[in-house]
Amino acid sequence: MNARPLRLSTTSPDFEAELSRRLHWSAETDAQVEQVVADILADVRVRGDEAVLEYTQKFDGLAVASVSGLELEQRELKNAYHGLPVQQREALQAAATRVRAYHVAQKRATGESWSYRDEMGTLLGQKVTPLDRVGIYVPGGKAAYPSSVLMNAIPAQVAGVEEIIMVVPTPRGERNQLVLAAAHVSGVSRAFTIGGAQAVGALAYGTKTIAKVDKITGPGNAYVASAKRRVFGAVGIDMIAGPSEILVLADGTTPPDWVAMDLFSQAEHDELAQSILLCPDAAYIEQVQQAIDRLLADMPRAEIIARSLNGRGALIHTRSMQEACDISNRIAPEHLEIASDDPHLWEPHLRHAGAIFLGRFTSESLGDYCAGPNHVLPTSGTARFSSPLGVYDFQKRSSLIEVSEAGALALGQIASVLAHGEGLQAHARAAEMRMKR
Amino acid sequence: MNARPLRLSTTSPDFEAELSRRLHWSAETDAQVEQVVADILADVRVRGDEAVLEYTQKFDGLAVASVSGLELEQRELKNAYHGLPVQQREALQAAATRVRAYHVAQKRATGESWSYRDEMGTLLGQKVTPLDRVGIYVPGGKAAYPSSVLMNAIPAQVAGVEEIIMVVPTPRGERNQLVLAAAHVSGVSRAFTIGGAQAVGALAYGTKTIAKVDKITGPGNAYVASAKRRVFGAVGIDMIAGPSEILVLADGTTPPDWVAMDLFSQAEHDELAQSILLCPDAAYIEQVQQAIDRLLADMPRAEIIARSLNGRGALIHTRSMQEACDISNRIAPEHLEIASDDPHLWEPHLRHAGAIFLGRFTSESLGDYCAGPNHVLPTSGTARFSSPLGVYDFQKRSSLIEVSEAGALALGQIASVLAHGEGLQAHARAAEMRMKR
Repeated sequence: MNARPLRLSTTSPDFEAELSRRLHWSAETDAQVEQVVADILADVRVRGDEAVLEYTQKFDGLAVASVSGLELEQRELKNAYHGLPVQQREALQAAATRVRAYHVAQKRATGESWSYRDEMGTLLGQKVTPLDRVGIYVPGGKAAYPSSVLMNAIPAQVAGVEEIIMVVPTPRGERNQLVLAAAHVSGVSRAFTIGGAQAVGALAYGTKTIAKVDKITGPGNAYVASAKRRVFGAVGIDMIAGPSEILVLADGTTPPDWVAMDLFSQAEHDELAQSILLCPDAAYIEQVQQAIDRLLADMPRAEIIARSLNGRGALIHTRSMQEACDISNRIAPEHLEIASDDPHLWEPHLRHAGAIFLGRFTSESLGDYCAGPNHVLPTSGTARFSSPLGVYDFQKRSSLIEVSEAGALALGQIASVLAHGEGLQAHARAAEMRMKR
Repeated sequence: MNARPLRLSTTSPDFEAELSRRLHWSAETDAQVEQVVADILADVRVRGDEAVLEYTQKFDGLAVASVSGLELEQRELKNAYHGLPVQQREALQAAATRVRAYHVAQKRATGESWSYRDEMGTLLGQKVTPLDRVGIYVPGGKAAYPSSVLMNAIPAQVAGVEEIIMVVPTPRGERNQLVLAAAHVSGVSRAFTIGGAQAVGALAYGTKTIAKVDKITGPGNAYVASAKRRVFGAVGIDMIAGPSEILVLADGTTPPDWVAMDLFSQAEHDELAQSILLCPDAAYIEQVQQAIDRLLADMPRAEIIARSLNGRGALIHTRSMQEACDISNRIAPEHLEIASDDPHLWEPHLRHAGAIFLGRFTSESLGDYCAGPNHVLPTSGTARFSSPLGVYDFQKRSSLIEVSEAGALALGQIASVLAHGEGLQAHARAAEMRMKR
């Protein structure tokens, strides 16, 4: 088996076009998926629990008499945790502790209420409050990632969300013990073994057994993504994720094997995942390709890795590190590694990325599991305008205004003039009435 | 003309059902609008400037030879500002100054980069950066509000966005001088007299003349709203706004005329706007109704006010202020006035609202124009999970991680165990390789 990422050079006259072709990924949704999802959502909205039961029997082969029969009790989550091999249990706990510490720092830095009084004694500010109740979607089957449970539930918990409802499909009753254990350590309040559009519908509209939530986060397949798009507005949602991506900026000082393995670690997710290396040193790029050739055979997921690297990977020779930074900004990757012995030299030039991994010791996989920052990140170039999942996604803000008597006089004059200018006389009168005292 | 908001009492057995009926508002979109918008967007995407020109001629009756002919020069914005009556010019400038001061405070409180090092020397944090380029949609015609220009452009400017592109339709060439002047005082970089789905398409995809933006904000009609939904993902968008709403919590200490005028000031926007009063004092509710009866005839927009209050308004008699707070939390209004002489007694009980106006002097209209906080607020109950437009909407965050050599050893052990547990061996190997030095 061979893995040969596309070789590009920025000096080639076709470079721009070739890069665009390689980056192209279409989020077009399948019309048939859309129709199935619309029908399921409408049905869950009307028939509630009954519909959820029927779809769960149909798609997951679970036959129970009521939705409460699909609820996982706290005891089951706890037992899953205590039933893990000690090494896994400790690793899960250690990861949860670090993720929590990071998000606590995030909340302290950017998620607290604030206010001030102006020179006329008018109070202005914002009060920050947690969402009341959120739903977390966790995929079942082969892509069941306990780390995703931590990354979705812990920021909600740190934000102060009172009720965190997890849904996870368990086709044919197969439960992933690590996922259940992760729910136990990350503050999940209730958990149901349901999935697909029917789970999204239950969370968005509420049923007799499952309370309506305010926001739904977490990854899922095309049906789940389509359902989340459709319920947006009735509830909040997080970003709809595209294929995962890594971009490595290398100045040639990191062992080529390490970089090759970092490219693999993205590629092994999925054949649509994208791994790109940008480097001004042609000989180093060759060494990375040799490392790929040498290391591939040993990887249990070699076939997926090869398909991903051959279909979507690229090794790009740039004129300079500065040019590599410019291209990275154009791509706005989900994960961006600066494989350099002077990463702080380049970091200020990098404006668009979900997460930036500085220096040779910072493999993306450390960030995926336990460094602390969230691993739910903007994909497909959306890092140009969006951010990692965070405590702020589980909070909302209300502006606070308390105009003093003196303030009402001064502000009333301004508001009155502008309101008349917009032809809104009741606005003007409401301001003017406060000026007469 | 009569304006008789629905009278409800929380002691009525039908209260819940009646309130639900009154609150009901459907965001269903018209299939024909959807199709027209999809066609225009696809056309603008392919034909760029040419399509924008054709639609602008067709819908706005503007015939020019090129899209540059639709650009408003900075000089024109400046002239509009200097051509205003002095009172308007000063009011606009004063409002801009206050709005800017508030958003600068907001950025300082919640929008700065942060980081820390853990006990092993690993750096963790987030870098906050402005979006590169944003588009601001400003409606033309009768709903042309210069205050909306300030409220959209100033937070972008404070965030540090380098290029702010305003689009505003000018049907038959009619330009609103206050809108142009507002663009001048709020840091708009470029302005085009285009509107509708074609303007949204031009901003989202870019044309030869108009650069692709990273995010589009600002209100618009059904075509604009539909276009924004469709381009979401290619670019960021703000919330899609429903009809405007005010909810007044009154303990009977604010002059009834003031409260009546505040209800009017919401109702005068639009017959779908919603004005609700919650009050435990039946006699006071009667006084507010009498004030409505007395004040209505004098209002230039009396007809719209009456239609709004009769169709969607409500005066609700509650058992207590506490119950009024509970109902307000259920409604999660866009604007929430606490018309009380002790507003700070009730404010902590109010969890869901776009903006909270405390005390008798704080009319919503002061907040709409010049108190400082943003007037773009979540509607239709979305304050349960979303926030006022702010500096944060024009920033995005990138996580920063720099793992130290000691950190790589400790974190590598955790990551390796969890990655093997998820069946992702390349993730495990990438972590393990960093543990060997």
